[in-house]
Amino acid sequence: MALPITFLTDYGVADDFAGVCRAVIARIAPDARVIDISHGIGRHDVRQASAVLADAVPYAPVAVHLAIVDPGVGGPRRAVAVHTGEDHILVGPDNGLLPPAIDRLGGATEAVDISASDYRLEHPSATFHGRDLFAPVAAHLALGRELASAGVPIEPASLERQPVSRARLEQLRAFAHAERIDGFGNISLDLCRDDLDGHPLAGATRVSVGSRKRRRTATRANAFEDVADGGFLFYEDSSGRMAIAVNRGDASEVLDLRVGDVVELEPAP
Amino acid sequence: MALPITFLTDYGVADDFAGVCRAVIARIAPDARVIDISHGIGRHDVRQASAVLADAVPYAPVAVHLAIVDPGVGGPRRAVAVHTGEDHILVGPDNGLLPPAIDRLGGATEAVDISASDYRLEHPSATFHGRDLFAPVAAHLALGRELASAGVPIEPASLERQPVSRARLEQLRAFAHAERIDGFGNISLDLCRDDLDGHPLAGATRVSVGSRKRRRTATRANAFEDVADGGFLFYEDSSGRMAIAVNRGDASEVLDLRVGDVVELEPAP
Amino acid sequence: MALPITFLTDYGVADDFAGVCRAVIARIAPDARVIDISHGIGRHDVRQASAVLADAVPYAPVAVHLAIVDPGVGGPRRAVAVHTGEDHILVGPDNGLLPPAIDRLGGATEAVDISASDYRLEHPSATFHGRDLFAPVAAHLALGRELASAGVPIEPASLERQPVSRARLEQLRAFAHAERIDGFGNISLDLCRDDLDGHPLAGATRVSVGSRKRRRTATRANAFEDVADGGFLFYEDSSGRMAIAVNRGDASEVLDLRVGDVVELEPAP
Repeated sequence: MALPITFLTDYGVADDFAGVCRAVIARIAPDARVIDISHGIGRHDVRQASAVLADAVPYAPVAVHLAIVDPGVGGPRRAVAVHTGEDHILVGPDNGLLPPAIDRLGGATEAVDISASDYRLEHPSATFHGRDLFAPVAAHLALGRELASAGVPIEPASLERQPVSRARLEQLRAFAHAERIDGFGNISLDLCRDDLDGHPLAGATRVSVGSRKRRRTATRANAFEDVADGGFLFYEDSSGRMAIAVNRGDASEVLDLRVGDVVELEPAP
Repeated sequence: MALPITFLTDYGVADDFAGVCRAVIARIAPDARVIDISHGIGRHDVRQASAVLADAVPYAPVAVHLAIVDPGVGGPRRAVAVHTGEDHILVGPDNGLLPPAIDRLGGATEAVDISASDYRLEHPSATFHGRDLFAPVAAHLALGRELASAGVPIEPASLERQPVSRARLEQLRAFAHAERIDGFGNISLDLCRDDLDGHPLAGATRVSVGSRKRRRTATRANAFEDVADGGFLFYEDSSGRMAIAVNRGDASEVLDLRVGDVVELEPAP
Repeated sequence: MALPITFLTDYGVADDFAGVCRAVIARIAPDARVIDISHGIGRHDVRQASAVLADAVPYAPVAVHLAIVDPGVGGPRRAVAVHTGEDHILVGPDNGLLPPAIDRLGGATEAVDISASDYRLEHPSATFHGRDLFAPVAAHLALGRELASAGVPIEPASLERQPVSRARLEQLRAFAHAERIDGFGNISLDLCRDDLDGHPLAGATRVSVGSRKRRRTATRANAFEDVADGGFLFYEDSSGRMAIAVNRGDASEVLDLRVGDVVELEPAP
């Protein structure tokens, strides 16, 4: 019984890139179920992809997680496969994409550099490692082959990591960052409810939220329905992060915010 | 053998919302095949989703139909699972989305309120019931668990329904509504061929079609190929509704029509 | 054991067209795995679809390849199913879409006209042959039914073909055409590396690339990483064609090029 393969990329849905990878997988591992997580990651947005992947994997069965957002394809970055403490496997470029997900799955217990893997297709291209390297390696590992057969052992601690952003709390205010922005413009911050313990923002029923350019007042709420259409809310989102949204609107557009931008928060009168 | 699960949402393809639901399903019911119907419903467009779902289910095998277009998530609306006369099961919010599909599958024979279902994931969020409530309930029902185990019995007749629009026929003219508009701008009306029996529009070879702002002349046709490129046609579409389209063009754009808008029709000279 | 079915269309992801076809397949062939190649082909772009399909099928397992880009639906064009020398089966409209893929799978050994196939759904519509004709035929063939049972024998040589474009090489310059343009704006030409043998372009480290309106200098490279962000590269792409791209940019936009347009190339100083 093959492991399922979850599949996350920035390939989009206009092209056949994800489809050809699915074909490669089906040829090697006909019984491996492919679970498309998303192919709508912004092109080359490793930071957003990394958060999306880490948020998704805890909901998946034990699986091979194939994740490809790879602006450095064909360059010197390594390609890796990693086994975790909870017996999941992750396959992707070594550019910071995988570690937050690995952390949520029990940490890395074994890692290999698959750049020259025997599982590569013949005559691999320099530009489409998804098809020629990552998908075949994922498919072979889904069939139960040993991680060690897929590449050369490397030190798990040597995996590249993205810089981690941290919200900064002052006496009254908080300076957080937009960590994920979804397609509806809802903004997840690098700030959890627990981070606010004892801070004036924890009990505030109204919160002033601001970007470099704009400022609005949000209502502390549990659900979108708690505020009127077009109203801002400040809430704990489904990923466990504090977040800012507009009911039936687009908060990132109104505040002109992108992933990584600073968001200022303070209790509003 | 698990039932297949059809899956319709307004989650879009930019995010991982549908993907995470697929992961949840795969964890609970690894053998249940997921059939993606569409995730491209306009955000919160319950009316369009309801027509799309009702048009799709007659083509599906006996299945659990998971449908989520849920502007009221986290609010007082109920979440439901419904068993039909033809042994299909539908799972979704009780906001009018499901009944037209239920009607096409033999009507509701049993219904439960799943808002506090034992099948929910632990610590359900207030904003992502797809992941935390609807997908796990659908997966457990696909495994063959009794509907009654998923929630509290409710009266099938108590399910919310969308107001039904009806075309109005006058002696010469008809006033219909745009019931579905597809991604190519083809407009399906709340008007069937049988409704036109004995009406002058039934035999008209040319039909004047108008919105509040614009009016064009359409040719009565069977297929797009029957009119020249850029020409309007008035035809019975694949859902069995009378429809207006432009061959290799976008009728909804030319006529500036949205779902629910009135469309005026009369025989043209 | 049913054959897998690969699935390529111009249906887009906004609508349920591809989804309803998947439902039809699941009803007829519950065990046939559907491998979505792409539904993002430009509407009615048979030429692009034909290249995408031909590039994808060599990576697939033995399968039924269901491909629908069908501007002539409901008109006189034939619908066909074709068996190939490598035991693949292709199903789609006879408008030039299938032959390049057939050629890569061993050539056509048998073909049938399925326009009036017994496998059609009852009361087939004139506008949605994907649902009513192509998907059910593909599903029945995936179950292992004889090709001859799906329609009327036709001469494989009678299949329609798109005109094939060919790059023209002069002493110093080459005039190629944009054969595929992907969603990132990378342009694949009707020109292979071998075509350049002995031509000055073969050894040029810098190449002037031009459209009717614009001209840029590209670096001969293997991978995107070989040039700076925003730089043009001239490279062999993953389909084996020579191609033009901008690292982290959109070459088709900068050069204002569409599929079929002429691209002029010459060694740059």
